[in-house]
Amino acid sequence: MKAIVYDGPTQMRYADVPDPVLSGADGAIVRAAICGICGSDLHIYHGHGLNTTPGYVVGHESVGEVVEVGSAVHNFRPGDRVIISASTGCGNCHYCRRGYSMQCTDGETGGYGRGGSHGRHGASWGKGMVLPGLQAQYVAVPGADANMVALPEQISYEAAIVMTDSAPTAWLAARHVRIVPGNTVAVIGLGPIGQMAVMAAEAMGAGHIVAADTHEYRRKSAERFGAETATKDTVEALLDERTAGLGADVVIDTVGSESALTQAMQLAATGGRVAAVGVNKEGRFDFPYRMAMHKGLEFFVGLTSVQRELQEILPLAAAGRIHPEWIVTHRTGLSKGAEAYSLIEGREDGVLKIAIDPWS
Amino acid sequence: MKAIVYDGPTQMRYADVPDPVLSGADGAIVRAAICGICGSDLHIYHGHGLNTTPGYVVGHESVGEVVEVGSAVHNFRPGDRVIISASTGCGNCHYCRRGYSMQCTDGETGGYGRGGSHGRHGASWGKGMVLPGLQAQYVAVPGADANMVALPEQISYEAAIVMTDSAPTAWLAARHVRIVPGNTVAVIGLGPIGQMAVMAAEAMGAGHIVAADTHEYRRKSAERFGAETATKDTVEALLDERTAGLGADVVIDTVGSESALTQAMQLAATGGRVAAVGVNKEGRFDFPYRMAMHKGLEFFVGLTSVQRELQEILPLAAAGRIHPEWIVTHRTGLSKGAEAYSLIEGREDGVLKIAIDPWS
Amino acid sequence: MKAIVYDGPTQMRYADVPDPVLSGADGAIVRAAICGICGSDLHIYHGHGLNTTPGYVVGHESVGEVVEVGSAVHNFRPGDRVIISASTGCGNCHYCRRGYSMQCTDGETGGYGRGGSHGRHGASWGKGMVLPGLQAQYVAVPGADANMVALPEQISYEAAIVMTDSAPTAWLAARHVRIVPGNTVAVIGLGPIGQMAVMAAEAMGAGHIVAADTHEYRRKSAERFGAETATKDTVEALLDERTAGLGADVVIDTVGSESALTQAMQLAATGGRVAAVGVNKEGRFDFPYRMAMHKGLEFFVGLTSVQRELQEILPLAAAGRIHPEWIVTHRTGLSKGAEAYSLIEGREDGVLKIAIDPWS
Amino acid sequence: MKAIVYDGPTQMRYADVPDPVLSGADGAIVRAAICGICGSDLHIYHGHGLNTTPGYVVGHESVGEVVEVGSAVHNFRPGDRVIISASTGCGNCHYCRRGYSMQCTDGETGGYGRGGSHGRHGASWGKGMVLPGLQAQYVAVPGADANMVALPEQISYEAAIVMTDSAPTAWLAARHVRIVPGNTVAVIGLGPIGQMAVMAAEAMGAGHIVAADTHEYRRKSAERFGAETATKDTVEALLDERTAGLGADVVIDTVGSESALTQAMQLAATGGRVAAVGVNKEGRFDFPYRMAMHKGLEFFVGLTSVQRELQEILPLAAAGRIHPEWIVTHRTGLSKGAEAYSLIEGREDGVLKIAIDPWS
Repeated sequence: MKAIVYDGPTQMRYADVPDPVLSGADGAIVRAAICGICGSDLHIYHGHGLNTTPGYVVGHESVGEVVEVGSAVHNFRPGDRVIISASTGCGNCHYCRRGYSMQCTDGETGGYGRGGSHGRHGASWGKGMVLPGLQAQYVAVPGADANMVALPEQISYEAAIVMTDSAPTAWLAARHVRIVPGNTVAVIGLGPIGQMAVMAAEAMGAGHIVAADTHEYRRKSAERFGAETATKDTVEALLDERTAGLGADVVIDTVGSESALTQAMQLAATGGRVAAVGVNKEGRFDFPYRMAMHKGLEFFVGLTSVQRELQEILPLAAAGRIHPEWIVTHRTGLSKGAEAYSLIEGREDGVLKIAIDPWS
Repeated sequence: MKAIVYDGPTQMRYADVPDPVLSGADGAIVRAAICGICGSDLHIYHGHGLNTTPGYVVGHESVGEVVEVGSAVHNFRPGDRVIISASTGCGNCHYCRRGYSMQCTDGETGGYGRGGSHGRHGASWGKGMVLPGLQAQYVAVPGADANMVALPEQISYEAAIVMTDSAPTAWLAARHVRIVPGNTVAVIGLGPIGQMAVMAAEAMGAGHIVAADTHEYRRKSAERFGAETATKDTVEALLDERTAGLGADVVIDTVGSESALTQAMQLAATGGRVAAVGVNKEGRFDFPYRMAMHKGLEFFVGLTSVQRELQEILPLAAAGRIHPEWIVTHRTGLSKGAEAYSLIEGREDGVLKIAIDPWS
Repeated sequence: MKAIVYDGPTQMRYADVPDPVLSGADGAIVRAAICGICGSDLHIYHGHGLNTTPGYVVGHESVGEVVEVGSAVHNFRPGDRVIISASTGCGNCHYCRRGYSMQCTDGETGGYGRGGSHGRHGASWGKGMVLPGLQAQYVAVPGADANMVALPEQISYEAAIVMTDSAPTAWLAARHVRIVPGNTVAVIGLGPIGQMAVMAAEAMGAGHIVAADTHEYRRKSAERFGAETATKDTVEALLDERTAGLGADVVIDTVGSESALTQAMQLAATGGRVAAVGVNKEGRFDFPYRMAMHKGLEFFVGLTSVQRELQEILPLAAAGRIHPEWIVTHRTGLSKGAEAYSLIEGREDGVLKIAIDPWS
Repeated sequence: MKAIVYDGPTQMRYADVPDPVLSGADGAIVRAAICGICGSDLHIYHGHGLNTTPGYVVGHESVGEVVEVGSAVHNFRPGDRVIISASTGCGNCHYCRRGYSMQCTDGETGGYGRGGSHGRHGASWGKGMVLPGLQAQYVAVPGADANMVALPEQISYEAAIVMTDSAPTAWLAARHVRIVPGNTVAVIGLGPIGQMAVMAAEAMGAGHIVAADTHEYRRKSAERFGAETATKDTVEALLDERTAGLGADVVIDTVGSESALTQAMQLAATGGRVAAVGVNKEGRFDFPYRMAMHKGLEFFVGLTSVQRELQEILPLAAAGRIHPEWIVTHRTGLSKGAEAYSLIEGREDGVLKIAIDPWS
């Protein structure tokens, strides 16, 4: 089959790779309908991935149709439309059975575990660890009952590709900060996850949503999802105007840098709740403890268990309440996949999400 | 009347000061029955308080009997036994009316506000700001309906003095980490607040409680409240034994140093919740973002709104379910108050809490 | 001043009554801008009210501007735009301070109390008990800090009049059934409260909303708020189609009859949650215990504490997320108030809510 | 193997029955260590069961050791100590995977479903439907990963037999009424489930627990678990004394009769929450709608999903916080099982729970 492989820093290649085979009785084979590129794939593109040895298939976003299932798969059969979860677990432990694949307690297969190590399933695809990437025509999914989610017929594959990672990551953040209807929500960074955070906040009953990004095209998109927008320099003033200086009940940071995290806490009202889902390159930051203590802040940071978040996202999309597909700005073929990486990196041409057709 | 005043670093003095007068129509005068010393008073004792000018009355823990109320006070009358909240607010804003005095939005009178500044009520007593301290025979309480709480007859003044600050601070932490019955809880630091954190966790349905402190007398006390104990060097091993290596669902840190905060996050299981209520001298710490992200941690840090927490603490104490008075290890008179400071500082003689009689 | 008074069954009269005076230091006088008629006023109109002695002013819906405040009022001053709560309490007890006026524990002044009796404030206006009605030009509000809510400038008086009772009653129901985003919600009965229940469900993140009423004009209105609609005979089939036969996660009944309540439980999915806010004339109904036990249902019934619910409704309206004013179908003057009663009773002319101008 | 079979009204017989065999690849065989009799078994004993045709094995309480597992069982292996859930589901649907077997959506195999019908698994054992009873030496468990729960080594089989149904049923009730620490809890009926309701309330942080039963030996037992007790005639007075007439925040009824259910709502405070888990023979009752509406009550009724509730019960028992084994008052052998039924029926000899040894 055809796939995109990592050949070295900034070298992605459209290549022939072996067809996948069933991983076991609980596995399934999916024929991809659309695959996607995540902002975090840029780390791999630049050679900063978990595995810098060239040659592995990349990507962790794919949706499609089941073509084969193992004998111990209960909830799927050939012909089913599915979302493949970007987060993978053993499928059988207490947490996996409930959808929290990131909390998988099977030290061998999935999740990060208490120490943060990577298991056999490596918690995800296409990192050059164990599970190959999903920018490919077919996928072998282990623990299919746990690592795939049925896609209702009302939801298009374009909406679904956004639900493999971007929407669930935003939903994780929005859910953890427990938006009470009427709450003022601030969102920092309006890439695909920030856009989805605005969408999630609106769906959960936010009052004012104030969102910040440097790029105008991103701000325009966020406004369509229901936000008022500003830049990082003007967002505090806008927020103060909307809240009589009290600040945001809830802040979602999708950037992850120390300056963004510090601003998130600054924007929060007393008693506020802050969630961060951006990647921080240093892996640490200087936490403003005294300010947070005086304000009584809650701070959450985490990675998404896609299966868990889809429990709420899917019925909203099926009912037409949310429109994740609005962030699909470009469409291309897998044979042009390498070019898509540079487009995303450059934030050119108004790009948010690119839907890749594996068959062209 | 008699009171303890700050005369300079390590100089506390038993002195005559003017009797307090009603602060207004919404104020009350309380005759103290017992007053206490909080660990945070040691900062003032050492001259690191918010106001280093000598001469002000210190302390923020007092319980007693109402002797006079203003004409606009609805819920109290002379003869009522009361707990004076260590945290003070305007009494009328949205938050104060609900007990969240630390979130008081009246920029002039109370709370810290979004920027962390101190208002007229200074958020508390005895810091040398506006409200005088409570290590005194009488207290003038502003906003009496909001800043005092009725003390049920079943609860002794000795139990009540622990409820002016230590127990509510621990309860704030325990409540924010949302202990689910059966959860394993780790507590770091077993001063009065740590002791109360163990008590709170037990009352909220914790399964295993694993608590750490250097001092054996503190560990013994925590065991009475229901904990298994260790030192900071052995706590992780004990916790791993109790949880098959998964870690604590919930961690409460009462120390506040960077090493304690880092250990708290290390002890947490994936999906864990961590609360910190200790004072951090630098006001900042190096947050282990990558580890926290991989584990999906929630982190809370805050100061207590005593009135809010007493809603749950008081009925538990009245029903005999909790015993905050178990941490009262010493009793003395106000005339010996200065000596009490050095006793607490030295952590000598098994001291946890000292009940001070203002009248001897 | 001018007001509508009850003169006997179906006899409402536009009359001159004495101007109200301040009820005490904690009271306020409000000049009405708009007043409304609630469906429950029809009980009084028919002489089935709590007091059948003619002559009292009726109505419990009014919004306007503060013209005078007592010396102990903290949060309002002349010129403030306010919503007068349809539910009244003492203003000082634990519950009133938090907005739960229906749980007022002051046996003398408000709430229903554990036994269901009426206190001095009678829990509401215009029942011929103690507090006169609000279909009048001026109102004396006792416990003004607790029984009035500030109206943000972005919200029109027409939207506000819907927030005095209809919207908060629906919100109470929707909040008690704890709508999880994506939940399927069924609403029975599409009078003003049913319309607001659809609005509330949509704001709280409902997926499918399936709503039933006999009248087509009501169904059309509910569709504008985001529902799919049916009649009581066809609603189950529509719901089954949307949920593959599983039923509604949440059901809100606004009718209150035994048949409506029974249907509500029938429509609920296993593990479902049902809230009822309609008046049941018999005061009792035959509860399908076995069915509810097999399905594991939660059932809530209650009366709204307007002040509590407005905490969430007001910021949503101020941010333009909800539009309660969409149910104002008619406008008239107080001098034509009597006619308005017969219009509402007849459900003629597409009537949902009538905004009454007290000054014409 | 040996088992107790139903031979007709009040005719239980110790009999030889065929050894069970694996139900499929996802099944397991358990060698019973202790089995129990539930109060609800008395309905079958009297011939009022779901199937009145004689000859089937009865009982739905058993704990023991796994002796064989099918090839698709992930979480158990021979030698594991297990609790067999009294509630059974398909094991694979959304709800079963999370432990909510009573909400099983597989219409063929388990749960009651929306209409209340019984599926292949019949929602439980020993009703003469499909799954044979558990008062036997061996059990074939279908969907073993979902329908069995691992028993930690710290927990005795005697404690575990109480956790197969009684403790989880009480926990369901206590969890649904959301006990806030300090809440006053009333419990009606002190059979095994009522005893466990007292235990659950205490573990969840109840303040006062006031419990009612006619039998003194039951009241004595409940006092050991932390309740104050009364009869049904004196309970309201005791409750009023403890709450200054406000009533109970939370009421748990374990009786199910109309008079008990009505009393439960009468005992509740305004804003109270009531849960019922007793069997109501008529399947309906006269619900005091007006009183409930004035008070704003929540009412829950349901059957337990054992697996779900054990998530919280097991770690509490493993940590020694709760002692379900305190209700085991009698021990006997399976060969004397028939006599045990008449002992339980008569409520003689201080009987609460009988632990039956299948091997004697």
